[in-house]
Amino acid sequence: MQVATTIAEIRAWVRKTHAAGKTVGFVPTMGALHVGHVSLMQAAAERCDSVVVSIFVNPTQFGPGEDFEKYPRPFEKDLAICAQHGVDAVFAPSRGEMYPRENLTWVTVEKVSEPLCGRFRPGHFRGVATVCMKLFNIVGADAAFFGQKDAQQVAVIQRMVADLNMPLEIVVCPTVREPDGLAVSSRNQYLSPQARKEAPVIYRSLQRSAELIRGGETAVARIAEQMWEILGQVPALQVEYVSLVDAGSLEDLPQVRGKVLVAVAGRLGSTRLIDNIVVDATAK
Amino acid sequence: MQVATTIAEIRAWVRKTHAAGKTVGFVPTMGALHVGHVSLMQAAAERCDSVVVSIFVNPTQFGPGEDFEKYPRPFEKDLAICAQHGVDAVFAPSRGEMYPRENLTWVTVEKVSEPLCGRFRPGHFRGVATVCMKLFNIVGADAAFFGQKDAQQVAVIQRMVADLNMPLEIVVCPTVREPDGLAVSSRNQYLSPQARKEAPVIYRSLQRSAELIRGGETAVARIAEQMWEILGQVPALQVEYVSLVDAGSLEDLPQVRGKVLVAVAGRLGSTRLIDNIVVDATAK
Repeated sequence: MQVATTIAEIRAWVRKTHAAGKTVGFVPTMGALHVGHVSLMQAAAERCDSVVVSIFVNPTQFGPGEDFEKYPRPFEKDLAICAQHGVDAVFAPSRGEMYPRENLTWVTVEKVSEPLCGRFRPGHFRGVATVCMKLFNIVGADAAFFGQKDAQQVAVIQRMVADLNMPLEIVVCPTVREPDGLAVSSRNQYLSPQARKEAPVIYRSLQRSAELIRGGETAVARIAEQMWEILGQVPALQVEYVSLVDAGSLEDLPQVRGKVLVAVAGRLGSTRLIDNIVVDATAK
Repeated sequence: MQVATTIAEIRAWVRKTHAAGKTVGFVPTMGALHVGHVSLMQAAAERCDSVVVSIFVNPTQFGPGEDFEKYPRPFEKDLAICAQHGVDAVFAPSRGEMYPRENLTWVTVEKVSEPLCGRFRPGHFRGVATVCMKLFNIVGADAAFFGQKDAQQVAVIQRMVADLNMPLEIVVCPTVREPDGLAVSSRNQYLSPQARKEAPVIYRSLQRSAELIRGGETAVARIAEQMWEILGQVPALQVEYVSLVDAGSLEDLPQVRGKVLVAVAGRLGSTRLIDNIVVDATAK
C-alpha cells in the first residue's frame, strides 16, 4: 500500500494507475476509520480497479468551538485498517500541504447547504465543498464514495459535482449501524457509557417516521410530533432539529411526497449526533 | 475542425486526443473573436499539440443593465477565424447545455475579486470563476490561455486554480493593441468614430505611469494624479478607477514596489473600457 503525504506523490501514483488502464475509486475521510468507512472501501473496490483513501482532518469545515482540536487522529490504526481492506494508496497530507497559503477560494452550494445542519454549523458545508473540490482535483479519481449517514453532505457534493460539471461519479453507500441501531460515527467514541446506551433513541424516532409514512400518514407535523415524543424519552438529548425534507433538494415539505429525507440532529452531553433515513412515500 | 455543441461531444473529442498522446490547450472565449483571441490560439498551438476554443457568452458574469443581450455573437465569422488559425475543436454550447437547471454552486475568490472592476461589477468575478471552473472540468485541457488585458480576471483564475489544486496550467499572454495603443477588445466595436479616436487616452495614461515609475517615482498618489490629468483631456471619458496595486494580490500599494499593476477603467459613451500594464518597479 502506497502512503503519499504530498500532492505530487498521489498525483504520480494515480497517473501511473490510469496509464495502466485501471480505474480509481476514492474514499475521502477524516480518519478515525470505522466499519462505515470500511463499507465505502469495499464499495470502491467492487466498482473500481484500485482504491485511494484520503485521511485529512479538514480545519475549514469546523466552526469555532467545534471539535477540530480533539477530533481523533489514530493514524497508525487507520493505516492498518486501510491495508487490511485492500486499499491501494492512502493520501495523508499535512495541513500545510492542503492549505499552503491563506485560502481565498470557496465553493458554496446555495439552498442545499442552508437547512438542517446548515443552520447549526455556519460555514461547515462551504468548508466541506471546498475541501472535496480540492481532493477531487488532486486525486483525479473516476468515482468518489460517501456514506448516506451524512445526508446533507452527500446532497451538497452531488449538487456541486452536477453544477460544476466535475468529471467523476459520486456513489452513495448505506449508513452502517450498530446492532442497536446507532449510526456508526467517529464521534460515537466521545459518548459516556450512559449516553451510548441512550443514543439509539434517534434511530428509533426515525424508524417510527418510516412506519407512519408507510402507514399512509402524510402530515409532516404529525410525524415530527411523534418523533419528538420518542426523542423526549431521553431528557439528556438536546435535539437540534427533526426535519422531513425533499431528499433531493432538501426543501421543506408541508406534506409527505416522493422520496422524503427524515433527519435528526442533537447533542448528548458534548457529542453532536446526526442520523437520517430516506423513505419513499410512493412505495407503500 | 470539430464543432461540438454538447458536453458529451467535446469530452469524447478530448478523451480521444489525450488517448492519442496529444496535449490539449484551451482558449475560453465569449466569441466576437479578434486578434487578441488569435494570439491566444497561437500561444496554445505553440505549447500544446491541439487547441480547443470555447465560444459561450456566459450570462452569470453579466450584471443587470450590462450588455449581455447586445453582446456581439458573429458565430459563423468566429468559426472561420478558428478554422483559419488551426484550431482543432470548437466547443459552442447553448445556455441550456451549460446551465440545465438553476445554478446553486458558485466559486468565489475573496480579496482578489474585490478591488478594481469588482467594485463596479458586483458578482462579475463570481460568474467568471464559476464558468471557468465548469469549462475547465468539461474540457479537461492541460493548459488554458488568457489575455493580460483582463488582468483581474487573470488574477482571479490563477488564484482559483492554485487554491483549488486544479490540474491545469494557466498561461497569460500579452495584451494585443491597435497601432494607436488601444487594447483590442470585442467591445471596441461599440465605440462611435469620435469615441474610437479618443479611446487611446487610456493607454497614454498607462504609459505615463510607466515612465514615472521607471524614473524613480514611488508615490502612488503622485502617479495617479498625473494619470488623471491625462485622462481629463477626454471630457467624455467617465473614469471609474485609476489604480496601482500589487500585481499578484491586487492589494493597494501606498508606495510603488515590486511588480505593480496599473489599471484604468472608464466609460466612453455607453462602452466600458479597461486596460492595464504591469511595471516592475525593481527593474529601473
